[in-house]
Amino acid sequence: MNLNFRVLKKSGRNYSRLGSFTVRGFGIKTPVFMPVGTYGAVKSLSPDELYELNYSLILANTYHMYLRPGYELVKNCGGLRGFTGFKRCFLTDSGGFQVFSLAKLRDIDDEGVSFRSHIDGSLHRLTPELSIEIQNALGADIIMAFDECPSGGAGYEYVRLASRRTFEWAKRSLASHKRGDEQAIFGIFQGGIYPDLREESLRQITSLPFDGFAIGGLAVGEKKEDSYRIVSEMVHRMPENMPRYAMGIGEPEDIIFYIKNGIDMFDCVMPTRNARNGQFFTFSGKFNIRNSKFSEDRLPLEQDCQCYTCRNFPKAYIRHLYMINEILSHRLLTIHNLAFYKRLVEKIHQAIENDALEEFEGGFLKNFAKTENSF
Amino acid sequence: MNLNFRVLKKSGRNYSRLGSFTVRGFGIKTPVFMPVGTYGAVKSLSPDELYELNYSLILANTYHMYLRPGYELVKNCGGLRGFTGFKRCFLTDSGGFQVFSLAKLRDIDDEGVSFRSHIDGSLHRLTPELSIEIQNALGADIIMAFDECPSGGAGYEYVRLASRRTFEWAKRSLASHKRGDEQAIFGIFQGGIYPDLREESLRQITSLPFDGFAIGGLAVGEKKEDSYRIVSEMVHRMPENMPRYAMGIGEPEDIIFYIKNGIDMFDCVMPTRNARNGQFFTFSGKFNIRNSKFSEDRLPLEQDCQCYTCRNFPKAYIRHLYMINEILSHRLLTIHNLAFYKRLVEKIHQAIENDALEEFEGGFLKNFAKTENSF
Repeated sequence: MNLNFRVLKKSGRNYSRLGSFTVRGFGIKTPVFMPVGTYGAVKSLSPDELYELNYSLILANTYHMYLRPGYELVKNCGGLRGFTGFKRCFLTDSGGFQVFSLAKLRDIDDEGVSFRSHIDGSLHRLTPELSIEIQNALGADIIMAFDECPSGGAGYEYVRLASRRTFEWAKRSLASHKRGDEQAIFGIFQGGIYPDLREESLRQITSLPFDGFAIGGLAVGEKKEDSYRIVSEMVHRMPENMPRYAMGIGEPEDIIFYIKNGIDMFDCVMPTRNARNGQFFTFSGKFNIRNSKFSEDRLPLEQDCQCYTCRNFPKAYIRHLYMINEILSHRLLTIHNLAFYKRLVEKIHQAIENDALEEFEGGFLKNFAKTENSF
Repeated sequence: MNLNFRVLKKSGRNYSRLGSFTVRGFGIKTPVFMPVGTYGAVKSLSPDELYELNYSLILANTYHMYLRPGYELVKNCGGLRGFTGFKRCFLTDSGGFQVFSLAKLRDIDDEGVSFRSHIDGSLHRLTPELSIEIQNALGADIIMAFDECPSGGAGYEYVRLASRRTFEWAKRSLASHKRGDEQAIFGIFQGGIYPDLREESLRQITSLPFDGFAIGGLAVGEKKEDSYRIVSEMVHRMPENMPRYAMGIGEPEDIIFYIKNGIDMFDCVMPTRNARNGQFFTFSGKFNIRNSKFSEDRLPLEQDCQCYTCRNFPKAYIRHLYMINEILSHRLLTIHNLAFYKRLVEKIHQAIENDALEEFEGGFLKNFAKTENSF
């Protein structure tokens, strides 16, 4: 399915760009950040809260939904939209990354991968065909080809093998995709930290008729300078007229760096998972609500933030809720962190519009890094 | 502070009545059920959700707020309304019941009660004066006199002593109340399961210039027939021109019984606590979302319920969320259960309006009890 992706503006100074695509009537402006709803829900939030935060596209994990509650059930409940009540747009990953990072006793061959559930140890086998069958059943608007994602420490020979397998699996993913008129499908290129393997994988994957492309195998344990090097060498060579997606990225500073190199789409658990650990993001840095300095703080998490949390609650109350393990605190912090990511991306849009992303980055990092390591 | 309580309609067949009172411009129609926000928040819910459920009056626990985060802090953050963001009305209990039911190593004398925190074992002492000082600081619209609540199994002599102490403490509570122009104060009568002690306590407490009265010491471990007997003997003798409050009540069938005997106000953790254990209330009975029969159920929790949960989510999804420990499930079940209690009370209003509460009760119990013990 063609997403009608358009590049609306390109920087003259770096590879950043503004764009848009359309999914079932929803216009998605890029760069776009997608909150993660592992099991269908962005943890602690209702669909209405995501609407209020102005998120129209979220990610759900195929691996998790496959194990619980099962894809036939979701299909019978009207797919992800009918099941979860989130009526806007979904992207599902292929399950590959989770099989390689979460599951136990993996046994990979050219046909697919056998693994044991991280939940109950039950034995499963995932193939490109089954991943696509599951994703067809879940019914997301954008689905991903099944790839092999080696860990960040994998050696050259292994990564070479995995990249070639990823190419074969990409072809099989495309061939088994039965809902191409309703669901866009993206290909993923791999290659680890090895430039020649990256180049070969990019060439192979982009030779296939996907509707968008992702760079996989980043932030999987490799050194940050290695992933940054790969990103700066490879991303601008991804097809220009298609959305470019960096899976599992990232920290705010990563997002800016990747956008400078031409990435359009992101997903990351950081704003939501860290919220549940008490962390909140502000343009003055990251803080933890557990810090006793907030115990009598009558100000909102961030003074110029207009999210529901910041409009209504002093830090002292959110801290109180957190300290007594009241789950409302997770929700209030999650709302704020997703509002922060939204504002960050909007500020980046504005900076690209003015072709002043470097200046924005400089100012952002100066303030954001200042208190980064404060508790 | 006068609540301008009015009895609007009285049954000709039982002691039930419709009434209203006013708090800071909020009209409260009685009978009224108050959700419990132990630490300030009704667990898992935001203030907006309580507004949408049309709850204008909630209870917060003085004992809990005293221990965490402390009443000076709450006062400095603008009292319960400023601290919690719930801008409607609060009632606080006196802390007495929790000291007697939760705390350890209680040492009661005529002056007050020494106890150890159930959280960290720290030593504290609560007196009528301190309870009122805390409640003045928390700033609820209705506060409660400090009483001694013996357990349901307490013998006659002990209950007699506790009731007399409760009378002395009621006088001291009134004498130390410093915000009588902004906060109504209710007296509580005790007496356990002993009619003569109940009668004496009622006479003593209602001789004092309180703004409303509560029957305490029910549902504290006594047999249900004993509490029902006390309620049917005593409640209609409480002052008629004042709100009558049954603390900590109760199950839906209790609420109907108490209203038939003239009670106007209730609070109970049941709809909210049970939600977090997976239980949901319907007019066809109580069920638990964990039950595997709901695993593929595409219908809402209750078909004619209009709450946010029932408008948007199939049981299969709520069950899925519950089984993966996703806190959104607690919230969705809490919303529904509070909507159920709201609807129950509204149906009771209608039944009293038509002077047909017995008929309503008969029909309700027939359907509600049907599946009460189903998992």
